[in-house]
Amino acid sequence: MGRDHELPDLFSGASSAFIESLYDRYAADPQSVDESWRAYFDKLEKGAASAHQQPSWARSDWPLRGPVDDLTSALDPGSVVAEKPAATKAAKVEPENVRAATLDSIRALMMIRAYRVRGHLLAKLDPLGLEDRPRHAELMPETYGFGEDDLDRPIYIGHVLGLETATVREIITIVERTYCQHVGVEFMHINEPEEKAWIQNRIEGRDKEIQFSRRGKLAILRKLIEAEHYEKFLGKKYTGTKRFGLDGAEAMVPALEGVIKTGGQNGVKEIILGMPHRGRLNVLANVMQKPYRQIFHEFRGGAVNPEEVEGSGDVKYHLGTSSDRAFDGNNVHLSLSPNPSHLEAVDPVVLGKARAKQTQRNDKERGEVLSLLLHGDAAFAGQGLVAECLMLSGLRGYRTGGTVHFIVNNQIGFTTSPSYSRSSPYPSDVAKMVQSPIFHVNGDDPEAVVFACKVATEFRQEFKKDVVVDMFCYRRFGHNEADEPAFTQPLMYAAIKKHVSVTQVYADRLKAEGILSDEEFNAWVDEYHAMLEDEFEAGKSHKPNKADWLEGRWTGFAQPEAANLARRADTGVDEGTLHAVGKVLTEVPDGFHIHRTLRRILDAKDQMLETGEGIDWATAEALAFGTLLSEAIMYACRVRIQGAAPFPSAIPCGSISALKSAISPLIR
Amino acid sequence: MGRDHELPDLFSGASSAFIESLYDRYAADPQSVDESWRAYFDKLEKGAASAHQQPSWARSDWPLRGPVDDLTSALDPGSVVAEKPAATKAAKVEPENVRAATLDSIRALMMIRAYRVRGHLLAKLDPLGLEDRPRHAELMPETYGFGEDDLDRPIYIGHVLGLETATVREIITIVERTYCQHVGVEFMHINEPEEKAWIQNRIEGRDKEIQFSRRGKLAILRKLIEAEHYEKFLGKKYTGTKRFGLDGAEAMVPALEGVIKTGGQNGVKEIILGMPHRGRLNVLANVMQKPYRQIFHEFRGGAVNPEEVEGSGDVKYHLGTSSDRAFDGNNVHLSLSPNPSHLEAVDPVVLGKARAKQTQRNDKERGEVLSLLLHGDAAFAGQGLVAECLMLSGLRGYRTGGTVHFIVNNQIGFTTSPSYSRSSPYPSDVAKMVQSPIFHVNGDDPEAVVFACKVATEFRQEFKKDVVVDMFCYRRFGHNEADEPAFTQPLMYAAIKKHVSVTQVYADRLKAEGILSDEEFNAWVDEYHAMLEDEFEAGKSHKPNKADWLEGRWTGFAQPEAANLARRADTGVDEGTLHAVGKVLTEVPDGFHIHRTLRRILDAKDQMLETGEGIDWATAEALAFGTLLSEAIMYACRVRIQGAAPFPSAIPCGSISALKSAISPLIR
Repeated sequence: MGRDHELPDLFSGASSAFIESLYDRYAADPQSVDESWRAYFDKLEKGAASAHQQPSWARSDWPLRGPVDDLTSALDPGSVVAEKPAATKAAKVEPENVRAATLDSIRALMMIRAYRVRGHLLAKLDPLGLEDRPRHAELMPETYGFGEDDLDRPIYIGHVLGLETATVREIITIVERTYCQHVGVEFMHINEPEEKAWIQNRIEGRDKEIQFSRRGKLAILRKLIEAEHYEKFLGKKYTGTKRFGLDGAEAMVPALEGVIKTGGQNGVKEIILGMPHRGRLNVLANVMQKPYRQIFHEFRGGAVNPEEVEGSGDVKYHLGTSSDRAFDGNNVHLSLSPNPSHLEAVDPVVLGKARAKQTQRNDKERGEVLSLLLHGDAAFAGQGLVAECLMLSGLRGYRTGGTVHFIVNNQIGFTTSPSYSRSSPYPSDVAKMVQSPIFHVNGDDPEAVVFACKVATEFRQEFKKDVVVDMFCYRRFGHNEADEPAFTQPLMYAAIKKHVSVTQVYADRLKAEGILSDEEFNAWVDEYHAMLEDEFEAGKSHKPNKADWLEGRWTGFAQPEAANLARRADTGVDEGTLHAVGKVLTEVPDGFHIHRTLRRILDAKDQMLETGEGIDWATAEALAFGTLLSEAIMYACRVRIQGAAPFPSAIPCGSISALKSAISPLIR
Repeated sequence: MGRDHELPDLFSGASSAFIESLYDRYAADPQSVDESWRAYFDKLEKGAASAHQQPSWARSDWPLRGPVDDLTSALDPGSVVAEKPAATKAAKVEPENVRAATLDSIRALMMIRAYRVRGHLLAKLDPLGLEDRPRHAELMPETYGFGEDDLDRPIYIGHVLGLETATVREIITIVERTYCQHVGVEFMHINEPEEKAWIQNRIEGRDKEIQFSRRGKLAILRKLIEAEHYEKFLGKKYTGTKRFGLDGAEAMVPALEGVIKTGGQNGVKEIILGMPHRGRLNVLANVMQKPYRQIFHEFRGGAVNPEEVEGSGDVKYHLGTSSDRAFDGNNVHLSLSPNPSHLEAVDPVVLGKARAKQTQRNDKERGEVLSLLLHGDAAFAGQGLVAECLMLSGLRGYRTGGTVHFIVNNQIGFTTSPSYSRSSPYPSDVAKMVQSPIFHVNGDDPEAVVFACKVATEFRQEFKKDVVVDMFCYRRFGHNEADEPAFTQPLMYAAIKKHVSVTQVYADRLKAEGILSDEEFNAWVDEYHAMLEDEFEAGKSHKPNKADWLEGRWTGFAQPEAANLARRADTGVDEGTLHAVGKVLTEVPDGFHIHRTLRRILDAKDQMLETGEGIDWATAEALAFGTLLSEAIMYACRVRIQGAAPFPSAIPCGSISALKSAISPLIR
């Protein structure tokens, strides 16, 4: 329920007064205050003392790591001592200096808190830069009394930002970098202190910059090249054909790679994906690794399935698929659900599928199967289904251990500007109702996007709660390639026309960093194009040799050849079975105190079954389910839980305990 | 977008440091600080001085009222002076005392803020008292360093709570009374400072207790008697018949009276209501004033309408009606929409109707027509429609100037406990996505319920935003009267069985207050029963003499007698009309810079219309709408805007400007 736990934040200010009064007592007689407070003041004096001796915060014992990373917690008596034994007493300083240092600490902490709450308002999120984002007073050091002269004085901040002491200048550098660059985090609406602390600890601090290795950067670039040039290739080969391309949101491809990779590193074995049209063909090809030739084959109007009998009959940007991906030796099974044109309709399907997989795998912690939903900005804000799924997210009967939501924030819905399509500042505000953290990120900074996905996925694995990544981007073309967006959004599309692709933006950045040469880049693009041409040729004569759907656990399932036979079966059971099942229906477990009206109803039912007279609809239905359970379910179990199933191949009808033990794993 | 304005709250703590440094300068040389700050410190010294001279906060200049009611604003340089000219300088006190007084102020303000944010967690909301609500540290004075000895020292709090100075004891009394009794307010998630300040100003302070006159209290009691005994009467006369009674939530009836009355006082002329089944017959009778005999007639299976031809064919708890109510000389027209069993499906209908009425009345400020929606707790939390309607609430094309939402919080959904039906603490959390204030209230305190509705309605009229009242109550019987709730909720229903009705609770309270005698109460109940018996008898021979629907603006509308004739009409127009309308379709206003592709499309259309060749579906459709507009819409206007319409009775076909001026009021 969480809402009981917001104490620490609140303290930041109140403690100012409280500490001072305690300090007065401590200053008069150190023994007069509690041991933990004494340790705290000892430390403070030491800090103040060292602050006056050396201007550097580069301490030999830095960085300190411990369970406590916030002064607000450090102020909780007991925790400081628990974390670190009382420090050696340093040179005594004047009480006035200590008081000044305390005030410095409090002011600095207030400023840090302001950045945590509203830093996202200053973050540079929009690749098009259309929105005007003025700096607010609460994000200025002067507001906290820090002038130009105060910027280089070391201040004790008790492990906030991962630092024991820092100057205002350094604090500003860290909080601006953490909260106001290309990632804007909203998390201070969360009540659970551990969740907030986890996020702070994960992104704040001197060594928490977004950093990727040379190899990582080049991997991101190659996925961008794939994402962009795949669409370009389709655009060239099938000009005027609707493909709902990813153009303008290409960073989504490395982003998904980031979710899969991070998931795999944190125990995820399966990911169930749901997504709308936009970028679907790209995800199918470049994330799900559906063969390019197969997609080209479908573009040519070819059959989806080898036999052409069970095809979904649906358009190619509605299709799903499944595949296995390996990163660093972690295998992750991916399953993308097909979906209709109805926005967000796939959400509960994905949740149900993830939940079922968790049941099948006996994944009680729900850490092995991850639900991953992609959304358009307008749909996430506008479709009530989203709120409904969020409302289910914490319920015992429905939860999937948290969904990673990735919003492709086109900053437009079909032809409508956000101010005409939602009543909240961001498309993601609805997720606040279940206290999800929200990571807004600039889609033109693919490293930031991958970083946000990484942190979001880690958070989901840690707390098993829904989390949102909201990637600001744009649609280079219209709602699809057959629309002219400039009819309705002339200014936005004038800006988009002039805007270079994220691949180019990022390639230029890597070139400037000296990681990439023009030759390499061009070679990769050419290489990819050549491969696509080969696949395109192969697509012409391609014969699909696998059905997308009836694989894995579904192997062996098929439609009966003669449809009229399919419905014919002997569904009757003998009277003995009905009596046996009927007994199960009316029996009450030993020691269970049943409501007397219910007892009466069960007795009547017992009588009904005994005599065979007056059997009502409900009883007949219960008998039907009961007899199905006693025979058919066993078949289903054998199919669904191939090999692994510990179920007996048949259950003696009427054996209640066997029936129960067979059913219980299916209904837990 | 509001989210830029949370500065003031944030200040509460930071200012501690900031003020102190400023005060140091002021203490050394009053002229060295800005004039506004000088005035503030002058005032503070005066306060501190008087504090040491007299322990009373009963100042001759109290209560002070002004635009500024929060020290956080008072700390904003400039505002203090603007509010009150610099006070006369009082006796100078020692800087140490001023410092101590400043710290007192800050600690007190932090404590007040904590109550504003989380006081609702301590509020006594559940009439059944089933939930355990422990006191949290942040709502204890000791947390802010206030011990037993500190409770009676006057502290300067700069008009927060409407007081210039107050003791801790008095502050606690006010904030406990304001935030922790039978109303729990959530409003600190709102970003707009004026909205927060308005709420604080409305409910905080020494004279802001919930107070009703003797007449008001008795009026509330009489509505409770009606609400309770109407259900009892129905239960007796139609035992076992489903009526979805209001039993357990009777305070809803005086609550709605409160909304209507307050609305009327604040300019509301019409209220469009939507509600689910529960309590609908009660609202129809005791709020909408549908004749009791008519309802009894319907219980007997009688026709809803006189002619029995156009009846909705629906059950009695689906019906709507309309009526006029007058309070204090303010007439308010009420219209309750009929609704199906689909939870919340009526919401957008009500919003659309309210919006249409606003258009008809030319109610540009949207203060004359109010949308009022009643919800069950589980439906409000669970139905995505609610989120969708909230998302529409701020949009130019959809807003209705704010909806008053009243949640009948049964603390159960059908048979399900809240913890199994929603993932958020309250059913109302979804409304936080559009920053609605939320008033939780105990349904066993009808004065608190009416007060909450009053404040909510005032807020809606003031800010034209959605607002939520969440009345905690219980269902005395099951989901309807045919269910046995103890099957699924034995403990809850054991408690309900022992719980006396709110009418009895409130009557006892008024008796204890000496306002009511046993005789009076019994006489009222008997009187009401006698009236119901009379109406019951009258219902036996009742002939409905009015249709519920085709009144008011719909007078004159009727279904054609011969259904086969209804579809026959001469819908063709002459070619000249088609050419004239076609011209309107392809003409572009002077000075409008049209996209060249669109110009090409219009030119083609022009050609099409000129030659009559190759007219496509879209053009034909546009011609159909255009010709309808040029004739039929005029008829509709005459009917819909009877008498008041400034429209010509006929428009010369082809006159573009006349057509435009006729259409524009309909589409604004």
